[in-house]
Amino acid sequence: MSENLPIPVIVAGANGKMGRETIKAIANAPDMTLIGAIDRTHIGEDIGEVVGIGALEIPVTNDLEVMLAQGAQEKQLSVVVDFTHPDGIYDRVRSAIAYGVRPVIGTTGLTEAQIHDLTVFADKASMGCLIVPNFSIGMILLQQAAIAASQYFQHVEILELHHNQKADAPSGTAVKTAQMLSELGKTFNPPSVVEKENFAGARGAVVGENIRLHSVRLPGLLAHQEVIFGAPGEIYSLRHDTSDRACYMPGVLLAIRRVLQLKSLIYGLEKVL
Amino acid sequence: MSENLPIPVIVAGANGKMGRETIKAIANAPDMTLIGAIDRTHIGEDIGEVVGIGALEIPVTNDLEVMLAQGAQEKQLSVVVDFTHPDGIYDRVRSAIAYGVRPVIGTTGLTEAQIHDLTVFADKASMGCLIVPNFSIGMILLQQAAIAASQYFQHVEILELHHNQKADAPSGTAVKTAQMLSELGKTFNPPSVVEKENFAGARGAVVGENIRLHSVRLPGLLAHQEVIFGAPGEIYSLRHDTSDRACYMPGVLLAIRRVLQLKSLIYGLEKVL
Amino acid sequence: MSENLPIPVIVAGANGKMGRETIKAIANAPDMTLIGAIDRTHIGEDIGEVVGIGALEIPVTNDLEVMLAQGAQEKQLSVVVDFTHPDGIYDRVRSAIAYGVRPVIGTTGLTEAQIHDLTVFADKASMGCLIVPNFSIGMILLQQAAIAASQYFQHVEILELHHNQKADAPSGTAVKTAQMLSELGKTFNPPSVVEKENFAGARGAVVGENIRLHSVRLPGLLAHQEVIFGAPGEIYSLRHDTSDRACYMPGVLLAIRRVLQLKSLIYGLEKVL
Amino acid sequence: MSENLPIPVIVAGANGKMGRETIKAIANAPDMTLIGAIDRTHIGEDIGEVVGIGALEIPVTNDLEVMLAQGAQEKQLSVVVDFTHPDGIYDRVRSAIAYGVRPVIGTTGLTEAQIHDLTVFADKASMGCLIVPNFSIGMILLQQAAIAASQYFQHVEILELHHNQKADAPSGTAVKTAQMLSELGKTFNPPSVVEKENFAGARGAVVGENIRLHSVRLPGLLAHQEVIFGAPGEIYSLRHDTSDRACYMPGVLLAIRRVLQLKSLIYGLEKVL
Repeated sequence: MSENLPIPVIVAGANGKMGRETIKAIANAPDMTLIGAIDRTHIGEDIGEVVGIGALEIPVTNDLEVMLAQGAQEKQLSVVVDFTHPDGIYDRVRSAIAYGVRPVIGTTGLTEAQIHDLTVFADKASMGCLIVPNFSIGMILLQQAAIAASQYFQHVEILELHHNQKADAPSGTAVKTAQMLSELGKTFNPPSVVEKENFAGARGAVVGENIRLHSVRLPGLLAHQEVIFGAPGEIYSLRHDTSDRACYMPGVLLAIRRVLQLKSLIYGLEKVL
Repeated sequence: MSENLPIPVIVAGANGKMGRETIKAIANAPDMTLIGAIDRTHIGEDIGEVVGIGALEIPVTNDLEVMLAQGAQEKQLSVVVDFTHPDGIYDRVRSAIAYGVRPVIGTTGLTEAQIHDLTVFADKASMGCLIVPNFSIGMILLQQAAIAASQYFQHVEILELHHNQKADAPSGTAVKTAQMLSELGKTFNPPSVVEKENFAGARGAVVGENIRLHSVRLPGLLAHQEVIFGAPGEIYSLRHDTSDRACYMPGVLLAIRRVLQLKSLIYGLEKVL
Repeated sequence: MSENLPIPVIVAGANGKMGRETIKAIANAPDMTLIGAIDRTHIGEDIGEVVGIGALEIPVTNDLEVMLAQGAQEKQLSVVVDFTHPDGIYDRVRSAIAYGVRPVIGTTGLTEAQIHDLTVFADKASMGCLIVPNFSIGMILLQQAAIAASQYFQHVEILELHHNQKADAPSGTAVKTAQMLSELGKTFNPPSVVEKENFAGARGAVVGENIRLHSVRLPGLLAHQEVIFGAPGEIYSLRHDTSDRACYMPGVLLAIRRVLQLKSLIYGLEKVL
Repeated sequence: MSENLPIPVIVAGANGKMGRETIKAIANAPDMTLIGAIDRTHIGEDIGEVVGIGALEIPVTNDLEVMLAQGAQEKQLSVVVDFTHPDGIYDRVRSAIAYGVRPVIGTTGLTEAQIHDLTVFADKASMGCLIVPNFSIGMILLQQAAIAASQYFQHVEILELHHNQKADAPSGTAVKTAQMLSELGKTFNPPSVVEKENFAGARGAVVGENIRLHSVRLPGLLAHQEVIFGAPGEIYSLRHDTSDRACYMPGVLLAIRRVLQLKSLIYGLEKVL
């Protein structure tokens, strides 16, 4: 049966940090086969050699059109995974859909208006497309568990800890967690005393429905988020620690499998988990 | 409308550790009214005075039958919460059902055969009855989040930490968590190396489908459980810390509300969450 | 030998929260004997009965002078432990020294000028006196370990977590830790990027030599402090969790033993550890 | 003044994991200068290019004698850092001392008898030599803080967590910590109840003076050790997390500086901290 043939996958941005991990992950996935590797560097070289896992017989190219055309001719529905950069991302997604190659987009930079246009375009074509700001299944599980807990807990604070090369605080993912909890229709942390900060900032930032976020920055840290729920006599805490981009690969592979089953554009891996 | 009348509640074991907390919690719950307090001690005294929250006009009695008869005469469906001890618990549950008073049972000691009998008995009477080994909503949320995570993680270990007055290891709740994960139909922690314990016991106990449990015992600890999932590049951990029996009260109040909506016997608060 | 006789101890504020714990701790200390209990409440009652450990044959009194006179007549050097309140604390310490009874002062409220006066007064009398803002040996160990680590680490942040009944942030003890590290003659946390707070307060408060403090407040928390040092490739963290005033008793008993060996006024338990 | 000239350093095992980090660290240390790089691979290539930091004008060689002779001719006292392997390590240390080049030895495999011989040999020559099983200053600080805490706490357990590629349990460093605490002349963890393991191994391994060790193994973990002290009402815990060999470099550089001030063989970086 044709369903058992491996999924043909093209990786754009194949020599970037996420792209390299993706090449390795696809090479190890028995239900997938790499059919193309797009990058601006190492053109003509074998992508397997480039990422250090031995020859894959796939030379790097920088011609997306040719690759999409090839993807369109595969016996199986094919997928293009994009880990490039914001410039031209709208056009690349649109091209892929036009060719009938399902896009899995890890690249940021699409505006809301562009996402709307692409949604309409994918709908008309009955084509699956996944835009994924966060491929970490662990983080999505944490966020879903936090949403479940929010039904029963009135008090929550979020702590995130990152290396001191990170300029922004709080981390985008921690803000996202706070926003997800804030959309549940309640205000957290009803006060029990009049608080007083003797040193400004001690109580952290307030995001969404009165959720406090605290950002620690130190060399030696990697990327950590902890959501702490409290109630009289108990603390329930959810923590996610990331030490390597390898942690995103289960999410990338899942996205590749799921996008084939979709008939429209979906934003967020949590929608297909 | 009659639905807005408070729920009449009888507490058996009213002067025990859980009973005292329950009396206080009901006194603070706007949708409940205490109608009876049963205990072997302080008979005739006002239970409010006994637990230190001021008069409630409810004298302690040791006559369950009289209380159940009174509960049966209330305009609203009434509930009896039992935090006593194993002796005679079967008869007390059966009596309550016979009187039409819904039981919420926190007392241990019912055998599987007795639970089966009571299930049949409650069914015939179309009466709600809740047997609850663990009233901690936080712990149930942790266990449910762990079950959700088990779909995506292949590796997990459990750490539990308690004060050094606790004789048994691992804690019953940690074993229960391991058993819940083990019922999902997979074996965890496929080995990647041949492990070697240079000091016996270092790698903890194996429970269920190859889940390792580690029990720490120290004065200064209270009751803590941590479920740690691992995958390449990431750790996802769920932790519950208990410092006071107050943490069980949201579960007790929820059980009281839910048992009124049931028509049969249910085992476990997680079933009605 | 007279040195082996138990140390006679008077407790002022015997029925306060710290006083009650101190009465129990002295009753269990083989090298001490309670000779007096001072409080405004329960006058004339046996302090052992008042704190719930059975008769100690020591009636509560509110006459400090009489007790100090009695302490002065003991065969052994005697000690008065004061857990009362700021009003009149200066006079109480001075009286004790005048009577030759060594004071261990847990009560706050002495001004710097008063402490100076008392230091001179104790010096002249060659009398030991201990003023102790923090009796937690665990916290002192943490602070000393943090000072040792500061020699080798350039980056540190402090996290403190307390129940949501605590109004002030950061906690006084966390500020104290930051100040102790700041007195070592270096500035911590040289920046490696230009930081940007997208939500004000995310990066916490700055105390002393550029040390960040973060204060979490949730019901279910007790009193926790964590000092986190970071360097490339490693994190070294020190954490102290307090769940009961019992944790201060080793420090109180140590202070009673040490004050007898002193000939002058000492401020801070860490000086005699 | 000659003291201000940089320290000449030879690295043996320059292309191993620790050697590569050491090359980078020396290149960045203003008070050191690399004068030789020894390895079996990449002979003749510039070691700076080999480790990816650009040319250092130091070609890799595999001739230790030539390098030691060169080190002996430097105007400054010179140091050889050895991160090779057990074979021949005794001879290499002896050679270095004979040449007047101070050895810093990170290689394992020296027997106690060999260390004794080398100690005598270095003593006679009044030559500094450092054998360092653990270059992590953070871990040494943790161990020293644990020793300080052991004076005041009677109860302690150790938790160590590593990736699931690690075969041995407990980790050597955790065993070492337990042994250091056990040499202080007391037995820890006096029992307060008769413990019962319902699943064998739950309470971990017993090492030294009744200290429990627990070893967690999961993918996603790196290398973590936590020493947990408990007393009534409090927990004091010390934790070290390692994510990169970079964390050993401050210890390597410190060892290089310290070995020049020594006149004999010292075992353990903690002795010169």
